[in-house]
Amino acid sequence: MTSSNITIGIDVGGTKILGVVLLIKRTTRGDSNPLSTGSFSLEIIQELREKTPNDGLELIDSLFKVVSELKQALSIESPVPVGVGVPGLVDHEGSLRFSPNLTAIRSLPVAKLLAEKLAQPVFVDNDATCALRAEYLIGSGSNYKDVLLVTLGTGIGGGIVSGGEIVTGAYGFAGEIGHMVVDPFGPICPCGRRGCWERYASGSGLGRLGREAGLAGVAKTVVELAGGDPESIKGEHVTAAALAGDLEALGIVKQFGWWIALGLANLASALDPAVIVMGGGVVDAKGVWLDASKEAFSQMLEGLQYRPEVPIEPAKYGSFSGAVGAALYAFERIEAL
Amino acid sequence: MTSSNITIGIDVGGTKILGVVLLIKRTTRGDSNPLSTGSFSLEIIQELREKTPNDGLELIDSLFKVVSELKQALSIESPVPVGVGVPGLVDHEGSLRFSPNLTAIRSLPVAKLLAEKLAQPVFVDNDATCALRAEYLIGSGSNYKDVLLVTLGTGIGGGIVSGGEIVTGAYGFAGEIGHMVVDPFGPICPCGRRGCWERYASGSGLGRLGREAGLAGVAKTVVELAGGDPESIKGEHVTAAALAGDLEALGIVKQFGWWIALGLANLASALDPAVIVMGGGVVDAKGVWLDASKEAFSQMLEGLQYRPEVPIEPAKYGSFSGAVGAALYAFERIEAL
Repeated sequence: MTSSNITIGIDVGGTKILGVVLLIKRTTRGDSNPLSTGSFSLEIIQELREKTPNDGLELIDSLFKVVSELKQALSIESPVPVGVGVPGLVDHEGSLRFSPNLTAIRSLPVAKLLAEKLAQPVFVDNDATCALRAEYLIGSGSNYKDVLLVTLGTGIGGGIVSGGEIVTGAYGFAGEIGHMVVDPFGPICPCGRRGCWERYASGSGLGRLGREAGLAGVAKTVVELAGGDPESIKGEHVTAAALAGDLEALGIVKQFGWWIALGLANLASALDPAVIVMGGGVVDAKGVWLDASKEAFSQMLEGLQYRPEVPIEPAKYGSFSGAVGAALYAFERIEAL
Repeated sequence: MTSSNITIGIDVGGTKILGVVLLIKRTTRGDSNPLSTGSFSLEIIQELREKTPNDGLELIDSLFKVVSELKQALSIESPVPVGVGVPGLVDHEGSLRFSPNLTAIRSLPVAKLLAEKLAQPVFVDNDATCALRAEYLIGSGSNYKDVLLVTLGTGIGGGIVSGGEIVTGAYGFAGEIGHMVVDPFGPICPCGRRGCWERYASGSGLGRLGREAGLAGVAKTVVELAGGDPESIKGEHVTAAALAGDLEALGIVKQFGWWIALGLANLASALDPAVIVMGGGVVDAKGVWLDASKEAFSQMLEGLQYRPEVPIEPAKYGSFSGAVGAALYAFERIEAL
């Protein structure tokens, strides 16, 4: 028997909001988990992007607008399940307690406020946990029981599956891997500490490495792409130059890959995953940095000659994993009600 | 109904082997898990220490000797369950694949070789996973479902419980938290990399911080305790001076606590434990460094004003957790046969 369902998923990043409408087709029944691996397929039938406001009530307004416009675009009038992934510490009630990259938002009851505005239930979880859900259930992690998902965007998010179960932590805060310190004397982080992994290995980290290279005079093409000002360099300028084969840019990407690998090796030591899945906005940068990360990682893992290789795979849903996973989360919760 | 059982547990550290004979008294029955929390009590009725040889076959000989002498001391003639915890990457067959602190031991089938020598089954797991088992089942972690155990000895070991289940990882290698790099330009580690957490936050790390202070001329009492040679300073000299109230030694301990807290905060970001339990040989140093760690940790955790406090508790079984847990592991496995 097959049934199909329309569900909205929204991924709130540090910079952008991505909303999608998902058509979920269930292909089997009878499992207690409505979304067990392989029992369904999905299709993204609509998408929408907005800027992320750094203000609590404006964020709720933007989320409301995204839901309304997605429904309008498809002429949907009845309520559909809505799931939202937000970056930072999200508790079991769907409140965003703390988000290093949204500095003006603290203790925001996202699920409660958006539900009131939409007059329907809304399900909110950490953005990377949402991405993990998508990749573990139906993406690049679906053949494994021990999965580490790492999303590289404005910051770094993480999701962990251990023995087939999602690691949520005691309060729902697990997976904040971007704020593991890898260099205690490194640059200051919005979280208040120094040298967090995401200072180096996120989209913003690539921009920072690019600016340093630009200011040191060793990234001519990248500086040109940034309009001539080394201080305006962003990650995308480095990526563009690297994709065009610029050797200086490729040098920055190699350094970037080394920092990514450092954190991955740390997490692999702690968690022993069977696979590492890389997602987030940076993933769409066509794999130049993924190759650099893999190369560095393959030399960095503790006891590497004495253990099976840990494959590093790009997320099947790329930068859409978070939004897709948020939709799956809402679908699953609604089914469980 | 109550039944009692004699079991041997051995904890192989980077420096010392500790063997114990445990009297396990089961107080309830009917649970599918023979060692569910609260269903038993235990008593250490014999103990024995040996030096850890840095050689595979000598290690097997030492383990055989420890078992024999423990049994002899209690005039036990019949076979008793034997569990062994070893430091490093231990696979599901009880082979020690790689151990950074036992540099001459690689791919040693500990379970197989010791079983042949003793002519009985032997159960081998990672030392910190053993310690976790003891503390989670009947020690400082038994009131929680999300536990991080950290053992500070020659190196650092780790064990993780998530949602009531021990995180073993895909191949049994989870918990190698001592080899998470916290300073990529730091001192070289026997694992082959630089700036691993255990370079700073283990017993050897305390010695290193002490030697640096001694060589810099800011640890007069500690140098005296080490016989006048700053290069001979070991962790125990720093601890002894600090316990006697020496201010310079307390300064080193404060620095040591800061490095411990750094790694704990990293792991708390990733795992969101409800409690952190500190075990291992260093724990017996009467808590001077534990207070320093707690103080630093309380200011380091990401989003600390927006989340519940994460208590840091000393291991109930102190430096015996590993040996006790190894015995419990053997008992559990024998019961399951």
